[in-house]
Amino acid sequence: MSQHELSDALTRTASVFRTEPQKARVTLRSDSALQTGFHSQARIRSHQVDIDEPKGIGGTDLGASPVELVLAALGSCQEITYRAFATALGIPLEGVAVSVEGDIDFRGFFAIDENVRPGFGALRVTVNLTTSASQAQIDALVVAVNRHCPVLDMLSKPVPARFETLTSPPSPIHWRP
Amino acid sequence: MSQHELSDALTRTASVFRTEPQKARVTLRSDSALQTGFHSQARIRSHQVDIDEPKGIGGTDLGASPVELVLAALGSCQEITYRAFATALGIPLEGVAVSVEGDIDFRGFFAIDENVRPGFGALRVTVNLTTSASQAQIDALVVAVNRHCPVLDMLSKPVPARFETLTSPPSPIHWRP
Repeated sequence: MSQHELSDALTRTASVFRTEPQKARVTLRSDSALQTGFHSQARIRSHQVDIDEPKGIGGTDLGASPVELVLAALGSCQEITYRAFATALGIPLEGVAVSVEGDIDFRGFFAIDENVRPGFGALRVTVNLTTSASQAQIDALVVAVNRHCPVLDMLSKPVPARFETLTSPPSPIHWRP
Repeated sequence: MSQHELSDALTRTASVFRTEPQKARVTLRSDSALQTGFHSQARIRSHQVDIDEPKGIGGTDLGASPVELVLAALGSCQEITYRAFATALGIPLEGVAVSVEGDIDFRGFFAIDENVRPGFGALRVTVNLTTSASQAQIDALVVAVNRHCPVLDMLSKPVPARFETLTSPPSPIHWRP
């Protein structure tokens, strides 16, 4: 998709959402199930993602861990938001690559110290832009992106969550005569 | 890995973190780069994840979107935390599968209404446990999991993030004679 086509697609989508707000409200979904050990398989529409823990902490390393996936989600969300807003604002942007580092203290997850949070205590995001834009354009772009990046929003402001627990007994063993 | 081996691995790891807290503090990392359109490729250690937007909003659907990855990260993190705490607490747990739904209003991302947050406004988590545990055991397990699940922690309490923006000019075109 060319820059021009992307710009058209974004303008068209925004116009629909402006005039028909109910079309902008959607529910997204992931279904996952634990396999052997800590290996989980998630299905998101037609996509499948394997998630696991590294071997050092009891996993089999068949995929990135859940907290690493959060880093990848933040990095890619920043990149997509950079491209979308650069396109919408007419700011030249030839490329964008993001590195995200997260500091975690596993004493939180392992319930060794209840004062240590189980998630990342700090994130460092390095955004590499390939661009011929002016510094003023880049500054405006950074502000717009960090105000509208969905994953950054969810890591910066609490997201209310409701839980339901359903239980079923293990299947009985069928004895063959 | 059997339940017994997993239990041993967790006990061993927890014991190391208890006596040598500095070994529990690690930095995890994701490196990603935008490809064509909204398609991003993330590298996490030896793992690669393709991330994209659906076709409806300018993407090419080569992978789950960043916000969908957050749902998958939360679901799998719940599952792994259920298995870890069931193992540690000696509560029988034969299986766990989690569905996560997130409500999003794209007018936030598209900057149509600045009062609408760009991320999920609400999450619904359905936890399906296959277990022969008592209701009291299940209740204790749910409390322990929701207190120690790293991804849930990050969606419930703000994670401080620091940003650095680096810019480089586009490569000059090399003309061949």
